[in-house]
Parts: sequence; C-alpha cells; structure tokens
Amino acid sequence: MNKLQLSGERFEARYRIAAAHIEEAAERAEAICLEQTVEFPRALIGSPAILEGIVGRVVSLSAGTEGCYDAVIAYPWEAAGGELTQLLNVLFGNVSIQTGVRLSDFTLSPTLAARYRGPRLGIDGLRALTGVDDRPLLCTALKPMGLTSRELADLAYRLALGGIDLIKDDHGLSDQPFCPFEERVGLCAQAVERANRETGGRALYLPNVTAPHRAVEARARLARDAGAGGLLFCPGLAGLDTMRTLADDDSIALPILAHPAFQGSFAVSPHAGLSQRVLYGRLNRIAGADATIFPSYGGRFAYSPADCREIVIGATDSMGAVAPIFPVPAGGMRLSRIAELIAFYGRDCIVLIGGDLHSGHDDLQTNCARFRRLATDAAAALPTSDKSALAETARTHQT
Amino acid sequence: MNKLQLSGERFEARYRIAAAHIEEAAERAEAICLEQTVEFPRALIGSPAILEGIVGRVVSLSAGTEGCYDAVIAYPWEAAGGELTQLLNVLFGNVSIQTGVRLSDFTLSPTLAARYRGPRLGIDGLRALTGVDDRPLLCTALKPMGLTSRELADLAYRLALGGIDLIKDDHGLSDQPFCPFEERVGLCAQAVERANRETGGRALYLPNVTAPHRAVEARARLARDAGAGGLLFCPGLAGLDTMRTLADDDSIALPILAHPAFQGSFAVSPHAGLSQRVLYGRLNRIAGADATIFPSYGGRFAYSPADCREIVIGATDSMGAVAPIFPVPAGGMRLSRIAELIAFYGRDCIVLIGGDLHSGHDDLQTNCARFRRLATDAAAALPTSDKSALAETARTHQT
Repeated sequence: MNKLQLSGERFEARYRIAAAHIEEAAERAEAICLEQTVEFPRALIGSPAILEGIVGRVVSLSAGTEGCYDAVIAYPWEAAGGELTQLLNVLFGNVSIQTGVRLSDFTLSPTLAARYRGPRLGIDGLRALTGVDDRPLLCTALKPMGLTSRELADLAYRLALGGIDLIKDDHGLSDQPFCPFEERVGLCAQAVERANRETGGRALYLPNVTAPHRAVEARARLARDAGAGGLLFCPGLAGLDTMRTLADDDSIALPILAHPAFQGSFAVSPHAGLSQRVLYGRLNRIAGADATIFPSYGGRFAYSPADCREIVIGATDSMGAVAPIFPVPAGGMRLSRIAELIAFYGRDCIVLIGGDLHSGHDDLQTNCARFRRLATDAAAALPTSDKSALAETARTHQT
Repeated sequence: MNKLQLSGERFEARYRIAAAHIEEAAERAEAICLEQTVEFPRALIGSPAILEGIVGRVVSLSAGTEGCYDAVIAYPWEAAGGELTQLLNVLFGNVSIQTGVRLSDFTLSPTLAARYRGPRLGIDGLRALTGVDDRPLLCTALKPMGLTSRELADLAYRLALGGIDLIKDDHGLSDQPFCPFEERVGLCAQAVERANRETGGRALYLPNVTAPHRAVEARARLARDAGAGGLLFCPGLAGLDTMRTLADDDSIALPILAHPAFQGSFAVSPHAGLSQRVLYGRLNRIAGADATIFPSYGGRFAYSPADCREIVIGATDSMGAVAPIFPVPAGGMRLSRIAELIAFYGRDCIVLIGGDLHSGHDDLQTNCARFRRLATDAAAALPTSDKSALAETARTHQT
C-alpha cells in the first residue's frame, strides 16, 4: 500500500485525568492522543493524513470528582486493527507508565466490535449448562495446594455431592510434581462425574489451564477430553489474548472462569492504571470469559461496595453483541454473609466460598448444603424484578 | 502420587510491607505466606506436611524506610514448579490485589534457576553481534504510525546509513491495514541490509512481534526468514512466558528487546505492585529479553534517578547463570542529554532516541551521525573502569 487509507471510523476510550485545572487536563489529554498512537511530537509530523487520521482526538473533556477530569478520546479503529494485543496497546500501552491518568472505560466501534465474539456462554448460557435458573450459582476451589491428585478428587466428589455448581482448581494448582495436571484433571473430572450420576446434578469441574505459552491449548484439550465442564484461566499470568484464543476455539467449547491473579496492580490506584470496570469487566468480557472472579468488599482485599458495583457494570451492562458475564465475588467470603452478598449482587452472580466451607463444627457436605440453602433462600427473598436491581443502582452511582 | 514429597529447597521473595509497627508487618507477612501458597486459613490445614512443606516461611523481617518493613519469604520451589506463569503466581498472584505490599526483589533456588535459560545473548552477545564494544549502542524506532511499509523502509534505510545500531519498529506497529506485518518486515529488513552493504555496518532491524497468541511464533519465524536482526516484544501485552518461548527457541535465535507497554501500572505505587527492579529487570531477564526498554528519568514519564538505578541493578547484577542484559533508557530522550545519560548509565546501556532524531534544522542522517558522535565521545570520557560504576553506585543506593 502506497498511501494511508483510513475509514474514519473511531472507537472511544475514557480517561480520568488528575489535574489542577481544565487547561492542564486538556494538555494531558492532547498528550495522550499522541502517546497512544504516533508517539511523536505533533510539530514533527509532516503528513496531514497522519495528523488527521491516526492521532487520537479529544471528543469531550469535563470536570469529574476529586480534582479529576474525564476525557473521552477517539482513536481510528485501524490503529488497533484486528488484534486484542494491539487494542490494549492503543487503550493504555504507554500511558500505563504515567501517573495521574486512568483508563476508566472504553467502547468498541462497529468494525472492532465485530472482531470480538466475547463469552461463549455468558450468564444465560452458563445457567442453561448448569440448569440453575432461579438463584446465584455456587462455586468453590479445590485446595489447599499440597493435596495429592487423589485427595483433590475426593474433595471434588464431596463438593459435587454437597451441591456446589462450579468446582474449580485453586488458581495455584498448575502442573506441580505433587499434583500433575493430567493426573489431577482426570481424577477430578471422574469424581465430579460420579457424583453427578449419584445426585442427578450437573456440577462442573473447572481445571486451571493457566500455563506456559505452548502448553495452554494442549491442557485445555486434555481437560475437555477428560470430561471437565469448564476452564479456569488467569489472564494476568498467561495473557488476555490467550484466554480469547481458548474462548474462540470451537473444538474446545468450554466456559471460562477468569481469575485475577497478578492483575491487581492495574487497579490499585484511583489515579493510575485501569478502573475495576475495565479490568474485571470489559477486558475479560471481550477476551471471552463467561464469569469474572474479583475480590468482593468485606473480604481479605480492600475493594469498596462502589468498586464492586463498577465491576458488575463492566461485566453486565450493554456491550453490543458481547453477552453479559457473571460477576463472581470472592476473596474470603463466608457463609454467614451469603444473604447480604446476594441482597447486594442479586440473582445473577456466582458466589465463591473457599476456606469457610471447611470451617465450623459441621462436615464439608453439610456446609455445602447450607451454602446452597442460604443462597436459594436469599434469592427467593429478592424482589422478582431484581435482575437489574444492582445494575440500576450501580448506574446511579457511576463516577 | 499418594503422598506429598518435597525436596525442602526454597526460593526467596522480598516484600516491602507498609505497617504501623513491626507486629502488624509480621502479621501481614504471615498472611502472605498463606495467600501465595495454600490460600487457606492455617487453622484449617489438617496436614502437617502441607503446613511444614508448602506454606511460605518468613525468613527475615526488618524495618526499612518510610514506615515500611522488608519481609523475606521462602517458598518451596515445587509450589512454582517448572513454569514461569506459576512462578509469577507464587511471587505476586493474589497479593497483587492488595495494597501496602510490594514485591521488591526475588532470587531463584538452584532447581528453579536451572529452568530459566535467560537471555540468549545478553550484553556481551549483543555487543558481539553488533560489533560495538567501546560505547553504548544506539537505538531508535520506526515511526510515526501511519507511514506505509515503503515509507518505514525508507526511514530504516536512512537510519542505518546514519549509524544507528538497533532500528526497531515502533511498539505501536503490529499488523494494521496501513503497514501489514509481512510487507513491512520484508521491506524494512531489506532496506537495513542494503544500508549495511553500503556502510559495512551491522545495523539490526527489530520488528515488533507482539501479537495474538497463535500469531506470535509465526511472526517471529517470518521475521527471521526475512532477515530481521532481532525482535521487539511487549510482554505486558502478550505475556512474559510468550517472550520466554521466543527466547528459548533455537530455530528463531534472535535477540529480544522488551518494551514496557501496558506494564507501567505494576510499578506505579511505592506501596503496591512490583519494584522497578523486578518489573524491568528480573522478570524480563528470566523471560529471555536481551535488553529492557524503560522510561528514564528526565523524559515524558515520572521515574527518578533512583528508580532508574534500581532498573539497572535488576538488569545487570549477578543472577546465577542468567546473563546481564542491556538497560535501554527511553521515553523522550534528547540528543542534548546524551552526555549526561551516558555519564549516568555508563557504557553498558542502549540509548533510545525517538522523535528528537527528526527535530532541529539538520536532516535525519546528520542527526544520527551526531547521536553517534555524542555517544562515542561521552563513552570515551568515562573512567576506564566504568563498566560497573553505576552498578556500584546503585548498590550503595539500595533501598
């Protein structure tokens, strides 16, 4: 091609910029327009076609809260092209190294949106697969690390008998010598299958396929062949586009649960990095996760209810043809909080309880049964139209 | 395997913990020991073998600066196993979601160290390849985005004629419609080759192979077949283990220049995320980069000279069999600062100048020649024993 030809179609990113006054914010926004595209001083760009067509364009700039300004910048879709890696790069590549600027949201233009299939199942598909339509799904993890494959399989069996819907590997189980992937996945998948035969249930086992570059796809296929019902994946460890690859592969065709290991630093500062909405919601969604695990307020991590509402928005609001996905509040949740959590998150969530299922005077299966009863009761107590209750609340809380 | 068997060999991570007093720091350190391994309450772990063998162990805890404490935690090598993805997970997976704790450094135990080949060339190998042994290497980027492949190739030709050692794609060039990868790489590699024939030089062209999961390896092979002299890769966009895969592949066998796009958020807060030493140094090094681009003090980004010293330590200090790699100060460097930069970084760095090569009254080749002359002169002005001068200075500044 001998001449720059662009369609004129642009997609939009919203940045929150810390600045002393609007002129400073405008200057920073203009700098972002250059930094994220040409990375070149405006005055040195000889080509009007590049200046007009490639450089980001400030669409709006308005005062937000806490001395911040919200800048919406429009980029030509061609700058991102057809690749998720490059889309991330245009949205936040170099700007990630700066402070005082945060990617708070983004939307895809039609051509870009058509490149992302999003989740294979999403909320509706995962409900259909598990046969649970009237309450939140129940999830737990196989742990602690150090159990042998046989011990993990025994645990999986009892959890499935107890009525847990999604039984996932702890995200710390990979292919260690004490529970090699193939052995563990085979035994755990069989164990959950056996429990399902006994209960008539449809519990899913989701092994962790976070792995080295060349091993990921093979492990996902191995998991599918062994009878796994889904996959656990940590995009922060093994790449967002790798997750997308698994999601888009029709020969694998399993639901994906995204885990935030090694991603938290992106959302650690209110004035840098990614918003929770983008990190846990938008990005996982376009990269094909069907559910997104995040640290809920009130657990071992420091998120607020407002942060969690933002995550729910990113996971469930309208995003063109990309289906909504399940928010999965986690990170030290307890049985004693089930009613409160479901009152907060509504019916369309997956509640993940780990260690607490193993505590107290009762045995594991009794605790599982209690988990299920508590969730069912809490869901029944919700107003009938609750489906969008949190999303509505959340929208009124948008920052 | 029916019983947990561990070697007792452990590797160590150092965390900087913000706490009001040492008891609070000790409590947080103990919590990290659990969070990063079993992710399970200590009291609920029935197995003494897991408590003794798997859970992290606080090796030391001491008061640091600014109300922080330094905790060294030892993990069994088996928890990380043979995989870089899982090593990252043990070092900082869940803790990344917390504030007030930063991974400041880590060392590998012998078994782990043996799994990481590190850079293929490192500083010495890249010097041998380029034939430059007496001064810093000179690097620049092909930009701005929006130029056609032919225009980029023409630019590459003139940069190579001008005496630039490493001519890399801008990290924003992927496979966009206006400069498709295959076309661009073919033309640019030929252009640099032609310039080398004319000058007798050994300039290298390094195309950007940051790409979707299934495209990365194919692009790297295509680049090699087209005559590229190295690869540019953004591990933050496409995965650290993907970079390691490229580095370890003897059929590709090209040096790798790591670019920090989308990684900056990891090092944005002094009380969370990764230290600059870990992010730009250690991790890129075990993942096989031969040189690490970072935003130097005094440019468009906010790093201090102390931050940059930390990066040099992470890139160059002793790390077992893993060779030292080139620090590549970048991010708005100017020709007027060459002498100062080389006085600071010493001979063993690669200086990356982008836009400034295109500014001023002189043409591009004249600016390139000036860049080379300035670097040669600045290196000649260094004390003969400067090789380790910065590293020494840096060590005395360790925090």
